[in-house]
Amino acid sequence: MASTLLASGRLLKRGVRVPLLSGRFASTKSANWNPQDPLNIESLLTEEEIAIRLVAPPTPVYHFTYRLLAIQHMDTARKEQLLPRVLHGWRTEEFNHDTLPEMGKLGLLGPTISGYGCAGVSSVAYGLIQREIERVDSGYRSTASVQSSLVMHPIHEFGTNEQKEKYLPRLAKGELIGAFGLTEPNHGSDPAGMETIAAETDGGFVINGSKTWISNAPVADVFVIWARCKWDGKIRGFLVDKGAKGLTAPPIKNKLGLRVSLTGSVFMDSVEVPHDARLPGALGLAAPFSCLNSARFGISWGVMGALEDCIDRALAYALERHQFKRPLASFQLVQKKLADAQTEAALGLLASLQVGRLKDAGKLSSNMISIVKKNNCGKALLHARTLLDIFGGNACSDEYHVGRHAANLQVTNTYEGTNDIHALILGRAMTGIQAFVN
Amino acid sequence: MASTLLASGRLLKRGVRVPLLSGRFASTKSANWNPQDPLNIESLLTEEEIAIRLVAPPTPVYHFTYRLLAIQHMDTARKEQLLPRVLHGWRTEEFNHDTLPEMGKLGLLGPTISGYGCAGVSSVAYGLIQREIERVDSGYRSTASVQSSLVMHPIHEFGTNEQKEKYLPRLAKGELIGAFGLTEPNHGSDPAGMETIAAETDGGFVINGSKTWISNAPVADVFVIWARCKWDGKIRGFLVDKGAKGLTAPPIKNKLGLRVSLTGSVFMDSVEVPHDARLPGALGLAAPFSCLNSARFGISWGVMGALEDCIDRALAYALERHQFKRPLASFQLVQKKLADAQTEAALGLLASLQVGRLKDAGKLSSNMISIVKKNNCGKALLHARTLLDIFGGNACSDEYHVGRHAANLQVTNTYEGTNDIHALILGRAMTGIQAFVN
Amino acid sequence: MASTLLASGRLLKRGVRVPLLSGRFASTKSANWNPQDPLNIESLLTEEEIAIRLVAPPTPVYHFTYRLLAIQHMDTARKEQLLPRVLHGWRTEEFNHDTLPEMGKLGLLGPTISGYGCAGVSSVAYGLIQREIERVDSGYRSTASVQSSLVMHPIHEFGTNEQKEKYLPRLAKGELIGAFGLTEPNHGSDPAGMETIAAETDGGFVINGSKTWISNAPVADVFVIWARCKWDGKIRGFLVDKGAKGLTAPPIKNKLGLRVSLTGSVFMDSVEVPHDARLPGALGLAAPFSCLNSARFGISWGVMGALEDCIDRALAYALERHQFKRPLASFQLVQKKLADAQTEAALGLLASLQVGRLKDAGKLSSNMISIVKKNNCGKALLHARTLLDIFGGNACSDEYHVGRHAANLQVTNTYEGTNDIHALILGRAMTGIQAFVN
Amino acid sequence: MASTLLASGRLLKRGVRVPLLSGRFASTKSANWNPQDPLNIESLLTEEEIAIRLVAPPTPVYHFTYRLLAIQHMDTARKEQLLPRVLHGWRTEEFNHDTLPEMGKLGLLGPTISGYGCAGVSSVAYGLIQREIERVDSGYRSTASVQSSLVMHPIHEFGTNEQKEKYLPRLAKGELIGAFGLTEPNHGSDPAGMETIAAETDGGFVINGSKTWISNAPVADVFVIWARCKWDGKIRGFLVDKGAKGLTAPPIKNKLGLRVSLTGSVFMDSVEVPHDARLPGALGLAAPFSCLNSARFGISWGVMGALEDCIDRALAYALERHQFKRPLASFQLVQKKLADAQTEAALGLLASLQVGRLKDAGKLSSNMISIVKKNNCGKALLHARTLLDIFGGNACSDEYHVGRHAANLQVTNTYEGTNDIHALILGRAMTGIQAFVN
Repeated sequence: MASTLLASGRLLKRGVRVPLLSGRFASTKSANWNPQDPLNIESLLTEEEIAIRLVAPPTPVYHFTYRLLAIQHMDTARKEQLLPRVLHGWRTEEFNHDTLPEMGKLGLLGPTISGYGCAGVSSVAYGLIQREIERVDSGYRSTASVQSSLVMHPIHEFGTNEQKEKYLPRLAKGELIGAFGLTEPNHGSDPAGMETIAAETDGGFVINGSKTWISNAPVADVFVIWARCKWDGKIRGFLVDKGAKGLTAPPIKNKLGLRVSLTGSVFMDSVEVPHDARLPGALGLAAPFSCLNSARFGISWGVMGALEDCIDRALAYALERHQFKRPLASFQLVQKKLADAQTEAALGLLASLQVGRLKDAGKLSSNMISIVKKNNCGKALLHARTLLDIFGGNACSDEYHVGRHAANLQVTNTYEGTNDIHALILGRAMTGIQAFVN
Repeated sequence: MASTLLASGRLLKRGVRVPLLSGRFASTKSANWNPQDPLNIESLLTEEEIAIRLVAPPTPVYHFTYRLLAIQHMDTARKEQLLPRVLHGWRTEEFNHDTLPEMGKLGLLGPTISGYGCAGVSSVAYGLIQREIERVDSGYRSTASVQSSLVMHPIHEFGTNEQKEKYLPRLAKGELIGAFGLTEPNHGSDPAGMETIAAETDGGFVINGSKTWISNAPVADVFVIWARCKWDGKIRGFLVDKGAKGLTAPPIKNKLGLRVSLTGSVFMDSVEVPHDARLPGALGLAAPFSCLNSARFGISWGVMGALEDCIDRALAYALERHQFKRPLASFQLVQKKLADAQTEAALGLLASLQVGRLKDAGKLSSNMISIVKKNNCGKALLHARTLLDIFGGNACSDEYHVGRHAANLQVTNTYEGTNDIHALILGRAMTGIQAFVN
Repeated sequence: MASTLLASGRLLKRGVRVPLLSGRFASTKSANWNPQDPLNIESLLTEEEIAIRLVAPPTPVYHFTYRLLAIQHMDTARKEQLLPRVLHGWRTEEFNHDTLPEMGKLGLLGPTISGYGCAGVSSVAYGLIQREIERVDSGYRSTASVQSSLVMHPIHEFGTNEQKEKYLPRLAKGELIGAFGLTEPNHGSDPAGMETIAAETDGGFVINGSKTWISNAPVADVFVIWARCKWDGKIRGFLVDKGAKGLTAPPIKNKLGLRVSLTGSVFMDSVEVPHDARLPGALGLAAPFSCLNSARFGISWGVMGALEDCIDRALAYALERHQFKRPLASFQLVQKKLADAQTEAALGLLASLQVGRLKDAGKLSSNMISIVKKNNCGKALLHARTLLDIFGGNACSDEYHVGRHAANLQVTNTYEGTNDIHALILGRAMTGIQAFVN
Repeated sequence: MASTLLASGRLLKRGVRVPLLSGRFASTKSANWNPQDPLNIESLLTEEEIAIRLVAPPTPVYHFTYRLLAIQHMDTARKEQLLPRVLHGWRTEEFNHDTLPEMGKLGLLGPTISGYGCAGVSSVAYGLIQREIERVDSGYRSTASVQSSLVMHPIHEFGTNEQKEKYLPRLAKGELIGAFGLTEPNHGSDPAGMETIAAETDGGFVINGSKTWISNAPVADVFVIWARCKWDGKIRGFLVDKGAKGLTAPPIKNKLGLRVSLTGSVFMDSVEVPHDARLPGALGLAAPFSCLNSARFGISWGVMGALEDCIDRALAYALERHQFKRPLASFQLVQKKLADAQTEAALGLLASLQVGRLKDAGKLSSNMISIVKKNNCGKALLHARTLLDIFGGNACSDEYHVGRHAANLQVTNTYEGTNDIHALILGRAMTGIQAFVN
């Protein structure tokens, strides 16, 4: 029965433009070619992984994912009911407090962790989840990425059993919201310059410093704070609960992208935390870097979802919209934009899939993550912008969604290592010479 | 005395980064090179034209222009007083009713017209005005462009003496706001497909149809409406006053760019206008095209102003912002972005200047306007986006302004002929073969 | 033992720049990362497939492949012995008659065919062979591609047993050279416009027409000629032997790329062939298109080999060459070029691998081949040109080889479907609308 | 009468494609628009300057220039007579010894110098000459540039009266060939690292060192050699005559570009020159840099001529060549390539013109030259390559000439300051921070 549902979901998706494919060009659309999966990446996925992408309503666990898909593929009337949450969030920068609990119910938070109420799926499945969420909006995916890769991952990897028991189940359900405090106002690309300081006291530690561009911060219940330790100069991680004295996390408003997610600063003025707030397994920058690598891996999948949504929307618009009595889709300059974007989406996904498989096989190198983070973010941004031009004047309206994706993707191309920084990481790996300060 | 003022204005501008240029590299900054005018375009301007760009407070006529400049070049404290109007407008999409009257006082509206309270300056001076306004925001420039090129120009060019007397002086003062109704929902790139119909009646004409993406429409006092005439199938222009029965002009909200300017639709349901509402000199599409050519010429200047502001801001940021203990400005990948952008700004301005001189000399071809509209909008957009990457995470904050410019420039690259359409206009001119429907 | 050989081959390759990777940056070079296989594509290959790439001298079957590798990785002294054949061919356009027989001995011709002296390897193995050959020169790969995909493939697929027995074994050994006559002087991108005509006669067929840009033609022993049949207007294939009366195949000299391979025209003036010269299984354009698809698949692998050679050479040059007392490899603008090229090589190979697997699994769509042909040729060309700039003035010398690759890749990006044509094939597949004439 | 000649020359040029512009699209070709001068740069030239570009046969002084033009604009039959010299030189790398004397007769050598048999024309006229020569081939222009800017200029600027009298008249006639020895094998982008040493002796100076990539060297009669002086570490220039003991200048063969010009190394093994061989006015790197700036200015014009020739040829091919029963020129993807190239040619020329006017007005900054050298070379290369794709398979044949231009332009984009180096020069000028070693 599941397969029936899958099949019908599939047919629904393909049905959209069937009428156009009849007639003398129909033969070019072979049985082996699905324009939404042009290199048949599905053939490389397990059944479980495929299910993440395509489950149908009767399967309650994936209700949320289903709704995401529905947003893409339902008819216009339905769309108008389903998309307002995104548009409202985008227009107002209001954080929707239902989103994380909903994701939690669907098992989308910390999904690679086994136990603590988490799903324990593969890294590829994790990537597929980010892709589906970011089809809707990069901000929702950012919220989920932070929770999963930057908060649950370090607690699971570097924390004590007590810390895990205390935080992971509630984070997995979306009952608690987490934030990750690494980036500082003066050290965006250079975390080694960290100025936040932790000193030891009788009762534990006292932390002073500030962090900025911290996703989820204004609503976070728990902060993973990275600080340089006064006693040995090394960097360690601390769990700081909301409400700690001296801790404030004001929002950064009026953002130009990721407006459906909350971002803030974190100011710590002699914030005291007990001894058991320290993540004992985390010593040195390698610890936060392992979090970032996990997050970057997810980003590389997510942005491809955003690009795929742009392609779907631009294709639908180009088929529907006529100029000079012909659909835009019939113009060479439009077809080239569509074909180039589709190619990059397929290649980027294939690369992230390979990196995911290597990750699960213990063969990962962080350089590989730099490749897919840099490539996929850069290509998603470039082609989202190019596809946007297909919309002409309507590009300017948020109701066509591609402009929103393009604005979001500018941020994803910059955060967690700018495109240039990842190029220099790869350059260093190729040449053996560091050129960050060059 | 004027020259003293000029000189001091100049020094003010250059002063910003003088300290950085001392020492062993100072020699590279020759007396002959101003980084803000790298090909010395000023040497090609008349004194009057230079004055438009650089007048100082005691000259009341140019008070507004001066303030624009001030926004760029004052110190941070002043900036925070001066920029809120733009930011407020951007964030809220509220139209500021003071702006057009202020521009009017400064002689910035319809400035190439002689008489009717207009300044009667050269086309190059007109271009320079657009450039200065768009340094602040493309939306302000759009508001001014519509008033000048799309409303005052056709009334002056195609109207009766009565129409000129009635409308031009008040439009020049910004007391009346004008809008230009050409584009229709189904004919963005193809005005020849126009569906709005004017029929003759006893008392005049009755107009039916709708227009969309009309700048200023929701607040316009007078609309220049283009319609196909039922009796001979030809296109003519009509002046329709606000409040005409059957005319509505609802705003289009939630725009992703040009948020400080108002845009709307115009719906005309049996709108009756008297015989003297017709612009007698306008017959066929050549008339609105002459308006568009004038506007496109101004756009080609304006977008260069926006790009120049992006360069100024990115340069200042790169000098101030440190990573890895060095200013961003010391990195090769940053310098390349700056140098490429500066080159395109200089070349684009030079081209627009040449087109302006040819316009005033009666040697203009509309193909030249396609060259500068297409090139300057495309380059401004490309390089604004590239410069934006210099800001890293801060790119996302509207307080750094370059993201706002980039979002605006996406629209300018699309409106009044998309980049592709102008390429095909030039392709047609080169090959003799029309390929719009190819 | 094989694995020992592999390992030692591998070490040899990596050894080149080991000294540079020691010291404080060594840690960035994890055990899991090979800069020449940055996404660990090797982990997706079978042992047999890996062997094609890396065999060592004692394995005589792969002697030729080994030598190719040797060209890349031996020290300079050896290089000077090994590369002259390529340089001599490039400089003189002389065809080297040893090359095809050598390839034949190594089993590199028609390798996917089972029987007739062919190796019967996977499509991926076929691709890997093209990649290794094109590391040396695109012209050698073109010669091999034509023999395998455009001559042996159609004989095997569409021929009679007699035709297979007669031609395949000798083609496999390189004793016979084949050519493929499809493209006509006036129909480069549009084979449906074919003007060559075959008419039936008592003894067989008489063919009239001309073909151009035919690889191998001047030295070919057998031509697969495609002609429109007078009696039903359909296109069929014919095997025409060298020396047939009325057949001439003059070379096209003074080429700017692919100079080590021969290209010619084919003129057929009432060329008579017997009835059994017809390929009975080939009816309609689908037959030559199946050949082209096989060739394009191989091209998509080959060009990645050329790009990889450019990367290897540019990296070695950048490490060795100093300016301003620092290796070029230490400059950001150089590292970015290297990193971008490496990323595209890895992604392109992964995509071709996926297409190869789908081909062998019977799940291939020709649209997938358009994706990899277009993407890989376009990216190889773009990045070869960019890497060339690293060589400064030396780019101009053919002894640095990257300029030769870049010149070759311009041709590969154009032949067997230009980049634009493949974009329009994909555009058609996405939209259902044909835009070749648009 | 001159105007008659001009007019007829003009008509000849425009006449080529008049038939294509008749009919319904004719109106787009206004009286004011010449597709070969799309921004009417001619309107900014003096009559003398215009004459350089357009003189007709009866004016013997410009016979050579006329022939260059003729190459562009004569019918095919004539072309086949006129172009063989270029193709022969390209194919064989043979230096044509008639070329410099012919140029000399036409006044094209050292044309900005007054006296010594030189023409004494404006810098803009000098630029226009380079543009006309490079329409034919960048190699011819390189030969002329070296003679004029790198040999005659420093002798005229820094030499004694005796040196001027001895060399300039014969260099102006092309009787002597000059070469400029600055670049060294290890210091392409960094002349400050110069290793060639001049020591003082009783009779004069003894020079030791080597130079590479020296245009004209193998046939040069006089070398301007730059060396670091042992006694004070400063760089000075010396005139060394061919045949000096210890001086050899072997050719560098098998070039991939500029094959019609000769390039060589210069080896100096204790070469003795008399005291009067020193250029007394040249002290420090400023002297050779002034030569390079003059040459770069000329290059910025020359490459635009090459690009214009590519546009002319691609346009003619696109109009003539049919695919799918339509001229290539009717396809959107082809028109876009043509329009983009034309725009860049027009903008680049305008910028060089402005720089030339400022040069003559004493308002030049070397930063301006970096702008036009970098921009024009980069754009010419980019668009020559793009236009090349219009030729499909024929791109590969040297008989279509655009491939030759593209290969040449790769070199022009690199020599006399690579594109990246000029970006960093501009970056330094903008930021005050040197990043060459970054």
